[in-house]
Amino acid sequence: MTDTYIIALDAMGGDFGPSVTIPAAANALEKQPNLKFIIYGDQKVVQSLLDQYSQLKNAATFHHTDIAISSHDKPSRALRHGKGSSMRLAIEAVKNGEAQAIVSAGNTGALMVMSKLILKSLPGIFRPAIASVMPTQKGKVVMLDLGANLVCDAEVLTQFALLGAVYAKVVQGISKPSVGLLNVGTEEMKGHDEIRAAAEVLSTVSFPGRYHGFIEGDDITKGTVDVVVTDGFTGNVALKTAEGVAKLTKHFLTDAFKSSPLAIMGYLLSMRAMKTMKDKVDPRQYNGGMFLGLNGICVKSHGGSDVLATENAILVAADLVRNDFNSQVAEEMEKLMGQESFVETVGV
Amino acid sequence: MTDTYIIALDAMGGDFGPSVTIPAAANALEKQPNLKFIIYGDQKVVQSLLDQYSQLKNAATFHHTDIAISSHDKPSRALRHGKGSSMRLAIEAVKNGEAQAIVSAGNTGALMVMSKLILKSLPGIFRPAIASVMPTQKGKVVMLDLGANLVCDAEVLTQFALLGAVYAKVVQGISKPSVGLLNVGTEEMKGHDEIRAAAEVLSTVSFPGRYHGFIEGDDITKGTVDVVVTDGFTGNVALKTAEGVAKLTKHFLTDAFKSSPLAIMGYLLSMRAMKTMKDKVDPRQYNGGMFLGLNGICVKSHGGSDVLATENAILVAADLVRNDFNSQVAEEMEKLMGQESFVETVGV
Repeated sequence: MTDTYIIALDAMGGDFGPSVTIPAAANALEKQPNLKFIIYGDQKVVQSLLDQYSQLKNAATFHHTDIAISSHDKPSRALRHGKGSSMRLAIEAVKNGEAQAIVSAGNTGALMVMSKLILKSLPGIFRPAIASVMPTQKGKVVMLDLGANLVCDAEVLTQFALLGAVYAKVVQGISKPSVGLLNVGTEEMKGHDEIRAAAEVLSTVSFPGRYHGFIEGDDITKGTVDVVVTDGFTGNVALKTAEGVAKLTKHFLTDAFKSSPLAIMGYLLSMRAMKTMKDKVDPRQYNGGMFLGLNGICVKSHGGSDVLATENAILVAADLVRNDFNSQVAEEMEKLMGQESFVETVGV
Repeated sequence: MTDTYIIALDAMGGDFGPSVTIPAAANALEKQPNLKFIIYGDQKVVQSLLDQYSQLKNAATFHHTDIAISSHDKPSRALRHGKGSSMRLAIEAVKNGEAQAIVSAGNTGALMVMSKLILKSLPGIFRPAIASVMPTQKGKVVMLDLGANLVCDAEVLTQFALLGAVYAKVVQGISKPSVGLLNVGTEEMKGHDEIRAAAEVLSTVSFPGRYHGFIEGDDITKGTVDVVVTDGFTGNVALKTAEGVAKLTKHFLTDAFKSSPLAIMGYLLSMRAMKTMKDKVDPRQYNGGMFLGLNGICVKSHGGSDVLATENAILVAADLVRNDFNSQVAEEMEKLMGQESFVETVGV
């Protein structure tokens, strides 16, 4: 018998709201029939959509709310005025044990602040991080933090390494994931104080991963390591720079294929191969920013997500639940905190 | 009559030394016959190469030295033991007024530390920065700092904005270049203290550019602004991440074109268009890290540069000399320092 996993879905989040989130949930359910949903949103919009997906309707409980957090709201405003909103209700469902994971495409800052307040962090974790999976020349890499914590000290970076390593191990099945610290060079003396201190801690302690050393920006997509650890400022800029370059290449490639009748014929002949390549780097395949380190599974879908992207975010949440990610983190955190070498090097 | 510009060339720098630097100088000279060179390097290797390029030989003075700084040397070691090295002699030639610019593909850290020590900064400039030009969807962007200063306060970031704007104005001919501060979001409250303080200064002072506001990683290649300003840690990671994604795309594209007989035919038909595209994003076209803010023009060629890339770095140096970049910076710095709003906001 397969376990049932219950996802609390903020139907109102994202640029397209229920018109995307509801079909996405239906598609996710088709792939994983053991999912159930608690859907929060405006009945006026959601109900008619739910009526179109009978399988989802049978697997879902619906809760009406006409309060939704805008993507422009400051997190502080969302906290004050977001009571009863679809996002907050979804978080509370996990807090109360009614659901195992939240998925929302809403305001990232608001989702992080409310999740931290309501769910709290896992024992010992100071700062939950945003993590995401990216394609590399060798497969996939998980990178964190992508923007939750702009400034991070050695201890926080070490905890990110643990979170990333547990993810790579339990969800991706890599037995001893390699972890790199993103820096401006690979030599020991490179970088600022925090990152060199983090390198010292990671070289000393035992954690579910294997500390590889410093890596540079181009190592992310080279596949040099399984887990890339960095502060939220650098991680956010790196991720968005990568997205920008991918778009630039697409732009130039489209121009090139349109540039002459020969090139157009070339495109037509290689169309199928191009499609395979496009699928491989399709950002929708990598949608789902995981808020790791919270006392509950929380996945942020990109605001501009379409149905396929949102479906992926739901499946990412389901993956974390199925692999019991949070129990594993709690266990590993306890082991880490008990190590004398950790206590000594971070100077707790 | 065209002015003559004299380039001090560290022939020994880079992975390939004189076998690349000498032909590159010869090619640059062919394009710009008003160049002259002072070449520093090991006679055993350089002389026979020089003999093959008679035009260059006539336009060059050669100084033998068998001391070369290794790419693995720490900057501090290079400072202590680098006296008489090809890199140091090239810098001293600019200091002594024998040459107008240094070009080296050697150790970046050593080149920066020695240049700062020998040439000093331009009046008022605290921290010289490394800048480079990158392709965008709309044309080109200049980005700095790329690694010289890992941590930067508001005043330093403001000076980078000035350096970048003067470059875009005098070398690229953009009359009022737009300048963006790289951040994790475009809203005013985003980012850490230093960057928000820099935004305040740039919104207040008058400088050769126009302050656009915060930009995000994907704005770099979108062409949102003419100048991207960031600290050296973030800039270095962003630049290398961009290089990594470009390589990843190339990797996937090559795989796609090889994936079936149809795709191979498609490639053959679109080969010419692909070549045009490849040229457009060819990193060799963008080679030449400019050390801006020094009291002398200094350009760092990538260590792995081939002849075309090194030739480009030489032409970048010649561009800076021809447009009298440093005098313009000195003039603009004086104007900036004289502004009450600058003095007040940075709290000098």
